[in-house]
Amino acid sequence: MRLRLTPREDSFYDMFADSANNLVTGARLLVELISDGADRPAIAEKMRACEHACDESTHAIMRRLNETFITPFDREDIYRLASTLDDVMDEMEEAADLVVLYKIDEFPKEIVHMVEVLERAAELTAEAMPRLRSMKELNEYWIEINRLENQGDQVYRKLLAHLFNNGDHDTLMVMKMKQVIDRLEEAADAFESVANTVETIAVKES
Amino acid sequence: MRLRLTPREDSFYDMFADSANNLVTGARLLVELISDGADRPAIAEKMRACEHACDESTHAIMRRLNETFITPFDREDIYRLASTLDDVMDEMEEAADLVVLYKIDEFPKEIVHMVEVLERAAELTAEAMPRLRSMKELNEYWIEINRLENQGDQVYRKLLAHLFNNGDHDTLMVMKMKQVIDRLEEAADAFESVANTVETIAVKES
Amino acid sequence: MRLRLTPREDSFYDMFADSANNLVTGARLLVELISDGADRPAIAEKMRACEHACDESTHAIMRRLNETFITPFDREDIYRLASTLDDVMDEMEEAADLVVLYKIDEFPKEIVHMVEVLERAAELTAEAMPRLRSMKELNEYWIEINRLENQGDQVYRKLLAHLFNNGDHDTLMVMKMKQVIDRLEEAADAFESVANTVETIAVKES
Repeated sequence: MRLRLTPREDSFYDMFADSANNLVTGARLLVELISDGADRPAIAEKMRACEHACDESTHAIMRRLNETFITPFDREDIYRLASTLDDVMDEMEEAADLVVLYKIDEFPKEIVHMVEVLERAAELTAEAMPRLRSMKELNEYWIEINRLENQGDQVYRKLLAHLFNNGDHDTLMVMKMKQVIDRLEEAADAFESVANTVETIAVKES
Repeated sequence: MRLRLTPREDSFYDMFADSANNLVTGARLLVELISDGADRPAIAEKMRACEHACDESTHAIMRRLNETFITPFDREDIYRLASTLDDVMDEMEEAADLVVLYKIDEFPKEIVHMVEVLERAAELTAEAMPRLRSMKELNEYWIEINRLENQGDQVYRKLLAHLFNNGDHDTLMVMKMKQVIDRLEEAADAFESVANTVETIAVKES
Repeated sequence: MRLRLTPREDSFYDMFADSANNLVTGARLLVELISDGADRPAIAEKMRACEHACDESTHAIMRRLNETFITPFDREDIYRLASTLDDVMDEMEEAADLVVLYKIDEFPKEIVHMVEVLERAAELTAEAMPRLRSMKELNEYWIEINRLENQGDQVYRKLLAHLFNNGDHDTLMVMKMKQVIDRLEEAADAFESVANTVETIAVKES
């Protein structure tokens, strides 16, 4: 193992940006996935590739952490930021896989708003990662993600009420759809965890 | 931003007490919510107000953390304590909201015992917060919360067995009720996380 | 309280090994539980005893942490390792209890593979705990647990697809089985959290 002796290892910023860019790709695949007439198995396959790419960047971060002597912020926070970014991807990938496994081919229409929340959260996260370098304008990012998570929560509850109260689907299909929607909600929560980790880092550095 | 230069910022104790007092209010609203003939939409509205108040104290703690130089215990633990208190409130609020969204108006009778566990846990937590100042008698609190969580777990399992085995409700209603009961169980778990965080703090200070 | 003044308190290694050995016992009870013609209430009773034993070792670790001045690695990591080992046991115990509560007496056959994953993960974890002393060969353990968790995830999804698509069971039974399978999946996730905690410790020590 080669110890890097530069005073601060800067490549972490790029690696976090890579992870977050994978999340943008993943969220856009979700948008495609819920579109009418989509080739869902093909999209889920792309999502799986995207999840592998995200895994790769997570492992690259962990390996770099292992061989780096002086890190730009606490090792524990680097570890947590890499893990929470990875959690978002895992939830999105599982949502897509369940859609295909369960052969779901129509969705309650409010699901569009839920996926839009994820897409916006992914974009904001990808834009925020490079700003870890200067620690500037992270507060705006954090506030906006929290706002989005609240909005996602409202959409989630409306989706559930619609799904359970309207009787549009048989009970097994309700259960299948709920599992997909829960993964999307957990992806939104995971974006909030990413933002909370960024906030912890910013508080320590301030 | 004004840095406070008092050797130790004491206001955290009061802010944690505020958060915990909100949980007492919330737990009592749950007691009302499951009573026969309750005006459930009105109670859920009060719960929402209570959740906003709790959010306010969480944010006040985070802001204070940001501007305080010397904290009474580890920054990370202050952060975690504020977050876990907030988690309890979120679960209780979601339970109340789901009851209204799903128009649930009768409950398996064992749910009373589940809500009693939450009420007692909230009271114990509110009583314990001011004792963080002296770090005294926190062990009793921690033991009692763990005992309550175990009791809540027993009640939870009995509730599930009753709900799924007795055939009192149609399948969709079983699913709706399970979601509410799960939130109550998660609120009990979150009280345990609060107690575990307090224990971590006490171990470090001992 | 007696402070131990040996330069490093070594008994933690044995206590972690005790906890992990309980997980091996628990996983083997799950293998029995899903066998045809098993006396399930008796097995769930043994599982409960196993869970109590695991609780005891968790508490012993926490007490020792409390009275030890110099720990072999960070207090926080000792705390987390003890907690995550305990989480695995809790999930396995809840799975067994739900099987009995819901009187489930046949299982989708792929469940065997899921329980095999847990048994293998428990064995690997029990073998790894003593190696915390030398910090050697932990990497192999960590990689293998991650591989197992991925495999468990594949099995989990196949199980869900089978359960929801094949129409072998009525809807309430599908819901009951899903709850058991979810606990097994969470046990596999908790094994991964144990491995991630071990990795964090190894990274800090390297």
